[in-house]
Amino acid sequence: MYKFKEENLLETELFNLREKLGEISDLDSSLALLSWDQQTYMPPKGAAARGRQRATISALAHRMLTSAEMGERLQRLNERRDELSDGDRALVDVAIYDYKRTVCLPEDFVEELTMAQSSGYEAWVASRKDNAFSSFLPYLEKLIDLAKRKAEYHGYEGSSYNALLEDFERGMTAEQLDSIFGELSLRQSNLVEKITTSSNQPDITWLERKWPEQPQLDFTLLVLRDMGFDFEAGRQDLAAHPFTTSISLRDIRLTTRISRDEPFSCLTGSMHEGGHGFYEQGFKESDARTPLAKGVSLGIHESQSRTWENIIGRSQPFWRYYTPLFLKYLDAGPAKISADQIFRAINHVRPSLIRVEADECTYNLHIILRYEIERALLEGKMAAREIPEAWNARMKELLDIDVPDDASGCLQDIHWSMGMFGYFPTYALGNIYAAQLFEQIEKDLPNLWAEVEAGQFTGLLGWLRRNVHVHGRRKLAPQIVYDSTGSEPSSKPYLQYLEAKYSKLYSL
Amino acid sequence: MYKFKEENLLETELFNLREKLGEISDLDSSLALLSWDQQTYMPPKGAAARGRQRATISALAHRMLTSAEMGERLQRLNERRDELSDGDRALVDVAIYDYKRTVCLPEDFVEELTMAQSSGYEAWVASRKDNAFSSFLPYLEKLIDLAKRKAEYHGYEGSSYNALLEDFERGMTAEQLDSIFGELSLRQSNLVEKITTSSNQPDITWLERKWPEQPQLDFTLLVLRDMGFDFEAGRQDLAAHPFTTSISLRDIRLTTRISRDEPFSCLTGSMHEGGHGFYEQGFKESDARTPLAKGVSLGIHESQSRTWENIIGRSQPFWRYYTPLFLKYLDAGPAKISADQIFRAINHVRPSLIRVEADECTYNLHIILRYEIERALLEGKMAAREIPEAWNARMKELLDIDVPDDASGCLQDIHWSMGMFGYFPTYALGNIYAAQLFEQIEKDLPNLWAEVEAGQFTGLLGWLRRNVHVHGRRKLAPQIVYDSTGSEPSSKPYLQYLEAKYSKLYSL
Repeated sequence: MYKFKEENLLETELFNLREKLGEISDLDSSLALLSWDQQTYMPPKGAAARGRQRATISALAHRMLTSAEMGERLQRLNERRDELSDGDRALVDVAIYDYKRTVCLPEDFVEELTMAQSSGYEAWVASRKDNAFSSFLPYLEKLIDLAKRKAEYHGYEGSSYNALLEDFERGMTAEQLDSIFGELSLRQSNLVEKITTSSNQPDITWLERKWPEQPQLDFTLLVLRDMGFDFEAGRQDLAAHPFTTSISLRDIRLTTRISRDEPFSCLTGSMHEGGHGFYEQGFKESDARTPLAKGVSLGIHESQSRTWENIIGRSQPFWRYYTPLFLKYLDAGPAKISADQIFRAINHVRPSLIRVEADECTYNLHIILRYEIERALLEGKMAAREIPEAWNARMKELLDIDVPDDASGCLQDIHWSMGMFGYFPTYALGNIYAAQLFEQIEKDLPNLWAEVEAGQFTGLLGWLRRNVHVHGRRKLAPQIVYDSTGSEPSSKPYLQYLEAKYSKLYSL
Repeated sequence: MYKFKEENLLETELFNLREKLGEISDLDSSLALLSWDQQTYMPPKGAAARGRQRATISALAHRMLTSAEMGERLQRLNERRDELSDGDRALVDVAIYDYKRTVCLPEDFVEELTMAQSSGYEAWVASRKDNAFSSFLPYLEKLIDLAKRKAEYHGYEGSSYNALLEDFERGMTAEQLDSIFGELSLRQSNLVEKITTSSNQPDITWLERKWPEQPQLDFTLLVLRDMGFDFEAGRQDLAAHPFTTSISLRDIRLTTRISRDEPFSCLTGSMHEGGHGFYEQGFKESDARTPLAKGVSLGIHESQSRTWENIIGRSQPFWRYYTPLFLKYLDAGPAKISADQIFRAINHVRPSLIRVEADECTYNLHIILRYEIERALLEGKMAAREIPEAWNARMKELLDIDVPDDASGCLQDIHWSMGMFGYFPTYALGNIYAAQLFEQIEKDLPNLWAEVEAGQFTGLLGWLRRNVHVHGRRKLAPQIVYDSTGSEPSSKPYLQYLEAKYSKLYSL
């Protein structure tokens, strides 16, 4: 009898935990919708009230997660973790991780950080507009100080940067990044130099016209459907800064934007967000409304978007299939444009000032520069006032570019103004994971490229579902990479991918 | 010193009350957005999770409103109500009213009611589809029983119906409704009989074509802009069942629908929702995020929509101005259609089975029938099984219509299936209040109709803002009517309006 009662108690504890985590998840969903709506359909005068609505919901979710009741329940469950099924144990472990990660920050610190983020963001907007780094500097110094304190609250092994990186890429360390990025910066930098001095440059004059908007969107929807995006469980809307958000497992919102000046950014942006969307649609149904149904890291999330945007969307087989459809949809007139012309144009390499406009070959170099600077800031090896000089010098070394002003230099990104240190590396990790996973995909799916050339993607999507999506937060990023490829995260596959593709494109 | 401290305490109590009411308002806003999104853009597979999200947010708001902390704070404030400013006292009074109205229902009763509503709704959908009242009957009996119990929990004077009416039309009683509806049913019924037997029927054959969709919407947006709807503080989208919702004081969402078979329903529907939207945009800025910034009753809300939809949108001066624009937008071709033709067509009276399709002359008769039945049910003077017979008999008396089946008879409305008894009268009160207020508006604004004939509505909107909107919940419905017209609510102005307008239209 006693044992029976104990089991019942355990079941009850689990039931109550799931109930409470479900409520937190519902609050997070509401927050996601408030945010999605703000960036798509909200009338402008709704902004002030929306800010308060988001703050209220966010505070309620925080209060629930960090309540004494939650802490005590998790402790009781942890004491009996050996009696839990594997699935329940994974849930309890993730919940304990989130709980500890949140409660270790004192309330007054969180408040101070929130205020500093808010005023830091406003100072950044103004200083970027005025091209005046000095007016942003005191805010940035404050945010760096807070980031250092945050690292101490969290604790860390090795570099203090690890404590911050963990918020975005749990399981990865600064030490590992050094080894991954070391080879990358050298070889990518060399590749870019060879490309820019190659005599075989693409003809892109045919792109110089105005491209109609609706057909771009229609073409994009066609490709998303072909890719397998379920429009009964998601949708696509327009937004100034495209993003993807999950309202629930069966309600994933992509956004995109349209440029009249070039016809690819809408498509590649949509394929990118579609990759994020697939991940969010691919968690286990039984994990819905729990913290297991989330992307495990920003790097893995970005690997999904980069796979579709770059490896597929900028490939020759893809354009062999889609070129006639592209020309038909965009009504490109009598001009004869070949699949190879598009393939070359969409892979045009041009070192440039702005990260978000960078091509595949230069993108990671922008990231490495930021990573080096923010790590030095956090470890106390660089002062905030030294950023512009360091930034400009490294831009010259890595991309041979002269930075004309801070607005298009160290003030271009929003991240630091929001106190987000440790975020940038995940963009590069996305490229790296994507290439490493794809190397394995090509082995596992020998017909893959033939399928892409026929506009079919079920094999690829199925592989990603099985090896990446379905795990949610059950496996950390390095584990996902290791379990599906047999190797630790490494930049080698990415470098091989880049060098092979661009040597061919630019006859290197 | 002591007094100073006391004052401080009072300020703190008020501050904390406003904070907590603000949080509840933010939760209500999130709920409104979750619901708006569900009816406009949500992908179909998101429905199940959306139901849970709404339930969670709704339960949290309920928990906050009924917390012991809230009750104690309101009690302390109430004890010192003489020291409060008028504005603060109004807020405290409304908060106390909402608190008491909510806590007087025991939790297990609320749960039982929620379950009965949910299964009642599903049973209604099925029984309407199968045209089988008997399969809905047990659910309806349960809902009536719960409504009776609810009335007992709330308490009442006079008819038990008053306790339920109060949820939708506080300040109105069944006894007052009897006196208002008594004359109405007789005179409206007589008017309808004269109209249907008149030999001067309108020509509506020119309407029999397919009307393109986008131009209808564009024309509607033009009219809403002319009316003065602020599209920086609101928007309009499509929905299967049009509604208006407030996300915040500066974020009001209208919805409309388009019929290819007739070109007026989109416009009149939008003007109707626009009237609701004006009300929601018109509360005091300083009342935002408090329970004062809400419509005081459904009747007053409906009076705003009916003013714009019917009194303005179906008037001759309105169509004198808009006919050329209507013809231009809808590209009605070479056919010569006059303002008078439209005026007559849009006021075509046709007794029909379905309430939501009813015209101005027959609408209230549908309501009176429902009011009589639901009041008899609540007072125990009719059994649920007797509804079909009573319904069909009264349809014959009031509208001279034979009801062919229950699906288009007593099963047509959703309200009872959701346990909403006491709601129907507010539709008729909306018409009545609208006409009564408008009688005064015509006195106060002698140029009103000249302005309407020039497509100008600022005078009208200003009057409604000053006399109705700005008060929010500070005045009950009868008080609003009395303060702006000097009379108690009465059906006389509405009957005069109807008889004058339709005698002319049908040469009676």
